[in-house]
Amino acid sequence: MEQKPHAEDQLYKIRHSLAHVMAQAVLEIRPKAKLAFGPPVDNGCYYDFLFDTPLSTEDFPALEKKMRQIIAAKQEFQGRSLPAREAIEYLSKRGENFKVEYCEELAAGGEKEIGFYQNGPFDDMCAGPHLKHTGEIPPDCFKLDTLAGAYWRGSEKNPQLTRLYCLAFNNRKELDQYLELRKLAQERDHRKLGKELELFIISEQVGPGLPLWMPNGTILREELENLAKETESRHGYQRVATPHLAKEELYYLSGHLPYYKDTMFPPMQLEGESNYYLKAMNCPHHHMIYRHRPRSYRELPLRLAEYGTVYRYEASGTLGGLLRVRSLAMNDAHIYCTIDQLKRELIDTFQMTLQYYKMFRFENVKVRVSTHDPANKEKFVDNPELWAFSEKVVEEVAKEVGADYFIGAGEAAFYGPKIDFQASTMLGREESISTTQLDFAGPLRFDLEYIGEDGKSHRPYIVHRAPLGTHERFMAFLIEHFGGAFPTWMAPVQVCIVPVSEEVMPYCRELETLLRQDLVRVEVDTSSNSFNKKIREAVTRKIPNIAVIGGKEAASRNVSLRRYCVKEQIQLSLEAFTERLKLLRSKRLMDNFPDIEVA
Amino acid sequence: MEQKPHAEDQLYKIRHSLAHVMAQAVLEIRPKAKLAFGPPVDNGCYYDFLFDTPLSTEDFPALEKKMRQIIAAKQEFQGRSLPAREAIEYLSKRGENFKVEYCEELAAGGEKEIGFYQNGPFDDMCAGPHLKHTGEIPPDCFKLDTLAGAYWRGSEKNPQLTRLYCLAFNNRKELDQYLELRKLAQERDHRKLGKELELFIISEQVGPGLPLWMPNGTILREELENLAKETESRHGYQRVATPHLAKEELYYLSGHLPYYKDTMFPPMQLEGESNYYLKAMNCPHHHMIYRHRPRSYRELPLRLAEYGTVYRYEASGTLGGLLRVRSLAMNDAHIYCTIDQLKRELIDTFQMTLQYYKMFRFENVKVRVSTHDPANKEKFVDNPELWAFSEKVVEEVAKEVGADYFIGAGEAAFYGPKIDFQASTMLGREESISTTQLDFAGPLRFDLEYIGEDGKSHRPYIVHRAPLGTHERFMAFLIEHFGGAFPTWMAPVQVCIVPVSEEVMPYCRELETLLRQDLVRVEVDTSSNSFNKKIREAVTRKIPNIAVIGGKEAASRNVSLRRYCVKEQIQLSLEAFTERLKLLRSKRLMDNFPDIEVA
Repeated sequence: MEQKPHAEDQLYKIRHSLAHVMAQAVLEIRPKAKLAFGPPVDNGCYYDFLFDTPLSTEDFPALEKKMRQIIAAKQEFQGRSLPAREAIEYLSKRGENFKVEYCEELAAGGEKEIGFYQNGPFDDMCAGPHLKHTGEIPPDCFKLDTLAGAYWRGSEKNPQLTRLYCLAFNNRKELDQYLELRKLAQERDHRKLGKELELFIISEQVGPGLPLWMPNGTILREELENLAKETESRHGYQRVATPHLAKEELYYLSGHLPYYKDTMFPPMQLEGESNYYLKAMNCPHHHMIYRHRPRSYRELPLRLAEYGTVYRYEASGTLGGLLRVRSLAMNDAHIYCTIDQLKRELIDTFQMTLQYYKMFRFENVKVRVSTHDPANKEKFVDNPELWAFSEKVVEEVAKEVGADYFIGAGEAAFYGPKIDFQASTMLGREESISTTQLDFAGPLRFDLEYIGEDGKSHRPYIVHRAPLGTHERFMAFLIEHFGGAFPTWMAPVQVCIVPVSEEVMPYCRELETLLRQDLVRVEVDTSSNSFNKKIREAVTRKIPNIAVIGGKEAASRNVSLRRYCVKEQIQLSLEAFTERLKLLRSKRLMDNFPDIEVA
Repeated sequence: MEQKPHAEDQLYKIRHSLAHVMAQAVLEIRPKAKLAFGPPVDNGCYYDFLFDTPLSTEDFPALEKKMRQIIAAKQEFQGRSLPAREAIEYLSKRGENFKVEYCEELAAGGEKEIGFYQNGPFDDMCAGPHLKHTGEIPPDCFKLDTLAGAYWRGSEKNPQLTRLYCLAFNNRKELDQYLELRKLAQERDHRKLGKELELFIISEQVGPGLPLWMPNGTILREELENLAKETESRHGYQRVATPHLAKEELYYLSGHLPYYKDTMFPPMQLEGESNYYLKAMNCPHHHMIYRHRPRSYRELPLRLAEYGTVYRYEASGTLGGLLRVRSLAMNDAHIYCTIDQLKRELIDTFQMTLQYYKMFRFENVKVRVSTHDPANKEKFVDNPELWAFSEKVVEEVAKEVGADYFIGAGEAAFYGPKIDFQASTMLGREESISTTQLDFAGPLRFDLEYIGEDGKSHRPYIVHRAPLGTHERFMAFLIEHFGGAFPTWMAPVQVCIVPVSEEVMPYCRELETLLRQDLVRVEVDTSSNSFNKKIREAVTRKIPNIAVIGGKEAASRNVSLRRYCVKEQIQLSLEAFTERLKLLRSKRLMDNFPDIEVA
């Protein structure tokens, strides 16, 4: 729910004015502090300082009090401008060397006049705009947030400054909403949950951006992969498995080299042989399978699918959690089809994507039809006819499916238009999860052909698609979406059997054996913990089904089922319980949502 | 069924003597040919020549006739020796420059006397032994086989020679047996079947030793992987998924660098970061998962499994089919356990391996207990106590399982003893398929620990195991073992429905839909081919079940089932047929063997 107001919006002015008020308050307790930049941002504002005596969060209450006093004083914001030379002199006199440096740069760039805004005793070089006076800032709309290190102008070569963040919204209610959502988001952060639920680790010795999936995370990956395999099998896909590397020749043929060299891992130089590269895409390998022998129209559409791992050489500093990694396992497939089959195939992948989203209960999904920019001949294949045709097809498809879409001009791939699917995280941050792309350039590059009904050679079209994106990104999204509480079919531990006393252990073991035969992932809590602690433990681990077994259950051969997401406990016969699990798993029901009930 | 006789065996002498007879015959039709080496080999003998006029297989009948004449002449083999200098002079005079070169080398190495054997007019530098006379060679025990190019002494820098191969056995019967087996082996060659059945390709553009699995091959891989996953899940394994590369630091820690650098792919040099290597083993990654947090004895044995892909930098010239590749997906797992659990874990993996072999009907499996060589401190970790203990454990395990094993002294891994399983191919060639290894050195290197019941820190033991070896090697073996006719549960197409006439098509389609719902891999032959051709086609593709549907079957809602491996056709009700398929698949029955019948 971050808000991005325009400069003329009231909220922008509140945040911008608040940055001045905050700096003013800081100078009252740190008169020797030097000022750097202090802009509004999406959730408030910040200001960078060079301190003689460090600031700490313990100073926050005093600072906030001073800020409220400045607000109460209703100081007027007065804008003026000075000739550049005068501005530099004025700032030099005050010893504001960072501002002097920036001002000199502006002057060198041709800027004649430099803006200043003053409120009360605080006078800052600033282009505005601001509120009329500090009293327009709602006194309970803000909260000092954190302190962080930041380099002057972002460069490690410059002095390190202290950045003071302030959250600011239109009013107290919005601030509270933001804080609550942020807390929820922090609790659901996939990095935090990934650690707590032992889903994955990033190992210093293995390398950044290369997650190692632990047993629990591997179960999630495999369940997702099984879902994709089964869905794709029903949709007539065939699976292939291709190596993770190839000769550089292949990437010159595909066009990845030399153009995308920077995003690829550096080559392995084999003595007396070609250089080899880790693959950045699966398409070249799939195209090699397509073209290893002549193809007939009878074989089309040919749909080759693979959870293919691709490698991206992202800068190590930008890597974090599962959202930006260097090794990605894609829910990839390439559909080779005739022009007549194209629309049907695009509709099918579109519907498959929406079906997945519905299943996982993603809301606020946005559909972007990404088209090319005819003016940009560098970024897009120069073939006006094929662009016109394929963009028309893609938009027709979006209409036919009944999707609420928007056009993203200039967002196409270089080889054809795309349909991108964006979902929103808890905090309202949009993430591109899935993509379906039409490719009319690949078949030319790779000289792909099929013999048509007319006995002549034709070019196929290619659809690239990845409804579940990559394991890494999709899992990050799912972890946060579910808050780590997975539905039974995905859950690393599907059932935890909690015995009330030692006497019922034989029945618990019998139940365990019964479930294991059906390959249910089941555990019996054999610890010496109290009953309540056992339940708490299972809840902390977010196990979807807790089978509570007391004397009554053992005697009647029943199970008392406690679902993770609901408070009530229900009694089920052994048969009803195992049937329930079978149904949850085979139908992949989302019983992590309280409204799903299975008889 | 290749035979490796000793030098003193009759068969060795037959083959060795035959090499002379063959050279003698060749010189009769190519008097200017120069002789190089001509040794006996496992299935006969060969001789290398430098020809002025090339030899062709069309010369074979004439040559064989001459050889039989020489045999009929009962020429005596007379051995003698000459002082090295005289031998060189004698060979020089005859212009046998290859022999001169070799003789000079022997002389330089200190050899004083050089052996010669003469029979009739043919006199050759040779150490023997030979038969008494050429008449001892059974005249129908041999057959000229092929011509091939070969470099003098195996080096590309030397002149290219022509190698003439001759098959030779004790008698005609053995020769015929060999020829028949070889024909069968050629028909079953996994490279040939891999192409015919569209299982995999090797692409020139991707690179040698990097197979691309086509849809049919991918089904086989996935079925095998599912078998392993299910088996391992029942045996209490947990699955992990690790990246295919890591920083060089990890391989210095594991000891792969610098010692095994030559078998690893060259590094990827990341700017301002560590070098990265493709993994040559999965253990270092699994150890990182083990040690990412403290472990308790309660968690042991911890069994981490992964079909992990490893990379080996084999010379490109040595690569071929699936037996020697550069990218291998291993049926890998590492078991971390206490000393008390070690034996139980070894027995369990041993039995799992034998269970697989029994299931696949591998015969003549040899079990080798591989121990270290105490004298070789370079090749084996220097820790006499742990060697003594662990070799004792491993041999006890082999005894307890009741295996018929032999000791392979000096064949251990550098970190501990191994149990290796060797099976035989059609042609009797032995292949190491599986291995179970005890590792006491890894835990020290990686500083692996667990907190024992005593509250103190202990080192675990590690068992490395791969009962199904790698996908690549195991598949090569299975393809040849089954001759490409896979059991129903593995088969790319499990059922082919063959309609006798167009009228029964609705029933065929109904059957197809019914089977597809159960995820049976089914096809309907909709071609316009004749009935017989349809059947032939399905047989050529080695589809295990052909469902023949005629008017009678459609009327009675039955299926006439023709199994690939048996001639009889049986009538089954629709229900009996689908039940049969369910059973074959769920129990993974080997219905590609005629003796397996499912009601």
